[in-house]
Amino acid sequence: VHDLCVHAAFEAKMKIGFIGLGHMGQGMASNLMRSGHTLVVYNRTRDKAQKLVEQGAISASTPAQAAEGVDVVFTMLADDDAVEWAVLGDEGILASLRHEAVHVSASTISPALSARLARIHADSGVAYVAATVLGRPEAAEKGELVVVAAGPKPAIERCRPLFDAIGRETRFAGEDPAGANAIKLGVNFVMATVLEALGEAYALVEEYGIDDRTFLDVLNGLFQSPVIEAYGAKIADESFDPAGFRLKLGAKDVRLFVEAGEAHAVPMPIASVLRDRFVAAIAQGKEKLDWAAVGRESTRPAA
Amino acid sequence: VHDLCVHAAFEAKMKIGFIGLGHMGQGMASNLMRSGHTLVVYNRTRDKAQKLVEQGAISASTPAQAAEGVDVVFTMLADDDAVEWAVLGDEGILASLRHEAVHVSASTISPALSARLARIHADSGVAYVAATVLGRPEAAEKGELVVVAAGPKPAIERCRPLFDAIGRETRFAGEDPAGANAIKLGVNFVMATVLEALGEAYALVEEYGIDDRTFLDVLNGLFQSPVIEAYGAKIADESFDPAGFRLKLGAKDVRLFVEAGEAHAVPMPIASVLRDRFVAAIAQGKEKLDWAAVGRESTRPAA
Amino acid sequence: VHDLCVHAAFEAKMKIGFIGLGHMGQGMASNLMRSGHTLVVYNRTRDKAQKLVEQGAISASTPAQAAEGVDVVFTMLADDDAVEWAVLGDEGILASLRHEAVHVSASTISPALSARLARIHADSGVAYVAATVLGRPEAAEKGELVVVAAGPKPAIERCRPLFDAIGRETRFAGEDPAGANAIKLGVNFVMATVLEALGEAYALVEEYGIDDRTFLDVLNGLFQSPVIEAYGAKIADESFDPAGFRLKLGAKDVRLFVEAGEAHAVPMPIASVLRDRFVAAIAQGKEKLDWAAVGRESTRPAA
Amino acid sequence: VHDLCVHAAFEAKMKIGFIGLGHMGQGMASNLMRSGHTLVVYNRTRDKAQKLVEQGAISASTPAQAAEGVDVVFTMLADDDAVEWAVLGDEGILASLRHEAVHVSASTISPALSARLARIHADSGVAYVAATVLGRPEAAEKGELVVVAAGPKPAIERCRPLFDAIGRETRFAGEDPAGANAIKLGVNFVMATVLEALGEAYALVEEYGIDDRTFLDVLNGLFQSPVIEAYGAKIADESFDPAGFRLKLGAKDVRLFVEAGEAHAVPMPIASVLRDRFVAAIAQGKEKLDWAAVGRESTRPAA
Repeated sequence: VHDLCVHAAFEAKMKIGFIGLGHMGQGMASNLMRSGHTLVVYNRTRDKAQKLVEQGAISASTPAQAAEGVDVVFTMLADDDAVEWAVLGDEGILASLRHEAVHVSASTISPALSARLARIHADSGVAYVAATVLGRPEAAEKGELVVVAAGPKPAIERCRPLFDAIGRETRFAGEDPAGANAIKLGVNFVMATVLEALGEAYALVEEYGIDDRTFLDVLNGLFQSPVIEAYGAKIADESFDPAGFRLKLGAKDVRLFVEAGEAHAVPMPIASVLRDRFVAAIAQGKEKLDWAAVGRESTRPAA
Repeated sequence: VHDLCVHAAFEAKMKIGFIGLGHMGQGMASNLMRSGHTLVVYNRTRDKAQKLVEQGAISASTPAQAAEGVDVVFTMLADDDAVEWAVLGDEGILASLRHEAVHVSASTISPALSARLARIHADSGVAYVAATVLGRPEAAEKGELVVVAAGPKPAIERCRPLFDAIGRETRFAGEDPAGANAIKLGVNFVMATVLEALGEAYALVEEYGIDDRTFLDVLNGLFQSPVIEAYGAKIADESFDPAGFRLKLGAKDVRLFVEAGEAHAVPMPIASVLRDRFVAAIAQGKEKLDWAAVGRESTRPAA
Repeated sequence: VHDLCVHAAFEAKMKIGFIGLGHMGQGMASNLMRSGHTLVVYNRTRDKAQKLVEQGAISASTPAQAAEGVDVVFTMLADDDAVEWAVLGDEGILASLRHEAVHVSASTISPALSARLARIHADSGVAYVAATVLGRPEAAEKGELVVVAAGPKPAIERCRPLFDAIGRETRFAGEDPAGANAIKLGVNFVMATVLEALGEAYALVEEYGIDDRTFLDVLNGLFQSPVIEAYGAKIADESFDPAGFRLKLGAKDVRLFVEAGEAHAVPMPIASVLRDRFVAAIAQGKEKLDWAAVGRESTRPAA
Repeated sequence: VHDLCVHAAFEAKMKIGFIGLGHMGQGMASNLMRSGHTLVVYNRTRDKAQKLVEQGAISASTPAQAAEGVDVVFTMLADDDAVEWAVLGDEGILASLRHEAVHVSASTISPALSARLARIHADSGVAYVAATVLGRPEAAEKGELVVVAAGPKPAIERCRPLFDAIGRETRFAGEDPAGANAIKLGVNFVMATVLEALGEAYALVEEYGIDDRTFLDVLNGLFQSPVIEAYGAKIADESFDPAGFRLKLGAKDVRLFVEAGEAHAVPMPIASVLRDRFVAAIAQGKEKLDWAAVGRESTRPAA
């Protein structure tokens, strides 16, 4: 991984379309505006655009409209279906995006869809960059995401100032956009595995009279990871509501990871079982809780 | 967890028995001597005692002999069977240990055996402390282990200077010795899960043209854990030989974790599958490699 | 389940379209012709239609053409994508099927696609019946399949003589076509689980000096199932080539089963792991072997 | 497998010790008496011996007493610990068994213990035969068990009339007693897997409006197995109380199967997960229900 370090001497202000103003999208769009770019925003439920419009963004009524005449259009949506609709639909961005424009696909989607979109964009003469983002909504708000970008290098270079606006660091992950999506899914899989492992470990030590925090302290002494510290505490305290990242979305990511593996005949025993744990958690009505709740699902079937 | 912070005004030098001079035991015994205590050491294969004897330790020909007349006896052995033999056998330490002595059980053994030993020791009027240690052989050598101690508080207090000699930090995990063993197994389980998860993630991203190090860099940016950094690199480079911690021992720990769960009716889906991955790795002749090799086993069945 | 026992006094000969002439389709179409019906057949690779054409079938060059003017059209294709293409594509059967016609969907597809097709057909005024078939190619050839039919009762009644022509028994599984697909996936899942279980049991007893056949004999004495007898022998003898039912198709069915569960938040720990075993078998290049080969994959990772 | 078909010209009546009068043992001992043999019986809770004593059996107060002077002694106990106690304990059968006697070990125990007992018996000049039995308590009562016998051939031949008295069929499984135990564990594992698979399949089809019996009928049409018919109905009706075979014992058998595999480095992904399902069922307080209840545990975590 090479950080993209060649700074442009002159950073032109751009016109940017932004599709998808959820928890993450809000912060990202806001930081792009703060950097001086002009934003045209679209969200299916329009009231979510309100705050940005008050800050100066233009509101579009379709993805196509948000992409019309822009230099770059971002999509930051929930899943493959939403992205397909917003990109390839009758009023999708490909219907209006001009040739020299770049589509920055920041959603956590399947590598398969990313690869397909890359082909379709190439046929339309539009650059497609997958730029997945790591971090929670607070990091999005502060412009402290980690951006993992893959796609044609010139397009990524053009977008570099935008990545700098939303993140604290940009990683280049090759020219194949699907790679960025695979990395994102892999990262989320490792995190989800840790959530479940923490839950199983807590369940065990509790039976021997050890409280979760005592165990977590020892574990933290070893791992020294702020991620494990934060999630370990969340599971110990069962503070799953409100969700930082919804269990339902976590379930989707683990599913995409398993499916991406299946597409390439990669056996994944742990991931396969982990996927089932998320299904079990959803079966218990926990889809709106923080995904760390999977750690309690697994170990307390008898509630 | 409270660090044991009540320092004794006067630290008497003790006579200490030490049973088990493997990778970890060597370093621990050596540091105890360095602190000025007198050591009587025992190891089944006697040549492993040679180095310590040259440094001034007395060599014993049975565990019982190593425990005779000592203030404290440590056991640091491979598994439940070895500990049972060294403690309860005809020439075991309980045959010679005097009443006011303390047995510090540092091996990674089952909570069940620890609980049983606690009962037997209590019947014999000997204090039993489980003091499991976290860290690799290098940490043992440098006296930088983390000690997780559980058992009767006065006995633990008496041993505090010894824990300080072998570790950089001591955690008190309650009066029930089995708790310290449960914590140790839980920690090793979480680590083993991460090994397997890293392996599955690598296998997936490789299929999308991403090399392991690129993925690991992104992951490290998130987790910021030296443990994940080190093991992530180990798996990426497949540098499993020589082993820091043998896969066979890792397999044993995951098995003990699962069995401890079963003893208390704790379902553990991930741990159950993880246990099977270690069995599969052993089936491929990898028991002497570093346990991180489990991360490659899982994902390369076709080799 | 009620067998469909109301026999029509007069069985009119029909004009039937048949899409998909693989191992199963060949036998089914052949038996329909033998019962006196007129067949228009379509297969993507046209030479597979040759034999039926020689027996008097009309060859069509598109699915739409095969469905034009017929009373009933059968689809018997490999997977969801193939069915979607043959039904909803530009030259799909819905483009030509007349209102009073019935589409009999015999392929093993996802309940989700079946439900979607049912809605689309209803909108087009065409009856949609899911009639999944149980049995191997030889049973298809002999007209001895078991037909599990679900959909509008009048449409099923109209097709009853056709089901009698291809099968030895027809089960009615309700008015919701997706139910028939769920049953088929469930049956294949139970069978696949038995394959894997046999493999794991063989692997264990072999280690204790028991040969597979000795174990199988004991098992057969208990289960007395021709299915277990036949597959048990197949796995014992490793006679996986040629395939009766390809591992790749079995993998697909287990995947569809797991996905159908996920769609309704049904946790399925065994199915989840089983799915991974099929992926592992494919990773070893076994996709063209009989699906019973999954029983050897699981237990011989080191070959 | 060869049935033992060489019939003795003259069948001497024997003096037989019988240790363990649970559901299975009662019927077996009763049938041995009915064949004209003299029985000395022992059970830890003595009132279970009452019925047999009324029929003419002699009551012993220790295993050793029950084994004194007998030609053959049977053990039919719950688990490894009970067998160890009854055989090797201070008042165990080895303390009194005469040299030419045979110990028929009918309990479902680990192959490891069986192998160890074989060695110890050989040292004591006593023949050790593992004769595991397949069938439910009703079959034991009717003398219709299937006996799987392994051990020294002459000893098995001597016991043949006894096996004929308790079973409808005897299978010879080699000269290594552990083989008979491995077969028994393998058979129970396959059955347990089917229970769980049925449960997962039911859970899925129910979501698509199919009731369990409809699905089971289709499955029965394919498998034609009385075992699957009976258990399929049991799970469909959730008639788990009273237990034919307790879930706790089933859990033990699956655990022994997994442990036997681990001892020989045999990976067993399905068995590993199945073991966890039994633990989960026990966690929900179902250990006294019929083991078929595992089929409902897995699929109804939210109750």
